[in-house]
Amino acid sequence: MASSFIRTGKKIVAIGRNYSEHIKELSNTAPKEPFFFLKPTTSYVSTGGQVEIPSGIIAHHEVELGLVIGKPGRDISQANAESHIAGYALAVDMTARNLQDRVKKSGLPWSAAKGFDTFTPIGSFIPKETIKDPHDLRLSLKINGALKQNGTTADMIFRIPRLIEHISSIMTLEEGDLVLTGTPSGVGPVVAGDKVECLLADPSGKELDSIVFTA
Amino acid sequence: MASSFIRTGKKIVAIGRNYSEHIKELSNTAPKEPFFFLKPTTSYVSTGGQVEIPSGIIAHHEVELGLVIGKPGRDISQANAESHIAGYALAVDMTARNLQDRVKKSGLPWSAAKGFDTFTPIGSFIPKETIKDPHDLRLSLKINGALKQNGTTADMIFRIPRLIEHISSIMTLEEGDLVLTGTPSGVGPVVAGDKVECLLADPSGKELDSIVFTA
Ligand SMILES: [Mg+2]
Ligand SMILES: [Mg+2]
Ligand SMILES: [Mg+2]
Repeated sequence: MASSFIRTGKKIVAIGRNYSEHIKELSNTAPKEPFFFLKPTTSYVSTGGQVEIPSGIIAHHEVELGLVIGKPGRDISQANAESHIAGYALAVDMTARNLQDRVKKSGLPWSAAKGFDTFTPIGSFIPKETIKDPHDLRLSLKINGALKQNGTTADMIFRIPRLIEHISSIMTLEEGDLVLTGTPSGVGPVVAGDKVECLLADPSGKELDSIVFTA
Repeated sequence: MASSFIRTGKKIVAIGRNYSEHIKELSNTAPKEPFFFLKPTTSYVSTGGQVEIPSGIIAHHEVELGLVIGKPGRDISQANAESHIAGYALAVDMTARNLQDRVKKSGLPWSAAKGFDTFTPIGSFIPKETIKDPHDLRLSLKINGALKQNGTTADMIFRIPRLIEHISSIMTLEEGDLVLTGTPSGVGPVVAGDKVECLLADPSGKELDSIVFTA
């Protein structure tokens, strides 16, 4: 069941560099086509939980809109993409930035830098019907009350149907899989003792979901 | 159940560069500690099946010993590692080598290069009791009858307890997860029409499992 994706889903497919202001802040180059990496489902932690930052790791927050897959598919067309989405979820793609910088220089995989236990704080399943336009949502994140990220999904470089088309051209998407759609600008470190609050809201400011976690 | 890992397992954690002759043949540098990447379980294909090579992709075979995890664990010590293994499996870590070379140069994730559907041919579950010493097994692979890979697990740089210790220091290993332990030398392309035969054997040459697939 897609609504129990945190427990039953098998993979998290996370898109990189999908907001131009975020690409600039990390001095990266914009991709010509979407790219992604995998996170293990053992990285989920629910709201109210704690993100464990291993010693020596600089952990950055990346607040993102997640897509919960509702039915399996391979080579899904953009026209059919929406029918494979069961719902949405607010998520944070925690990233060991210093480790990621190191592996990027060496041409090594990102899996460890993105895959620590508790590195994917995750909200509730939001049924598709609840959200009128997934490309018109506010994503924000505060640390200890100070606003750090405040973006809109309208700014995605590659839109949701294109993301699903691209991923499913390589691997089958299954029920319960989560697709993370990239983060707007404002990423930065979370340190031990921080209280982090994330919000997903509609254009009028109405809350659709929130996540709170400590580090 | 670990014996149904192909259907029920959630992740495949694959170790890179764990045999020195293979490191040399790809002109890579030897790692100071193990490193890994994730493959999706949607990449499994059982013996008798077909590996689909996407157009424009140069797909290399990497025959490997797989460890099937039997019980969950985090921060597993080398002394306890063996108790987390339920059994073994013969596997092939198919790799889109030209795509991998490209992403390595750009510092991008390996997930697509390793994660296409059918890029993990997989054998049967081999109960732990069947194998006396997992560090004394023959791994071989033939294409159209010609021997391409012929190694021994005795040549692993990082041995099995160290691999489990390392992975579980980052992410929880769960029942049904598969750990791929790296490939010996002799990797090379598989092209459409090829018949590939892989063998796992004990030191006396007795077959423990085999996989056959076409491309
Ligand atoms: Mg991200
Ligand atoms: Mg990777
Ligand atoms: Mg390999």
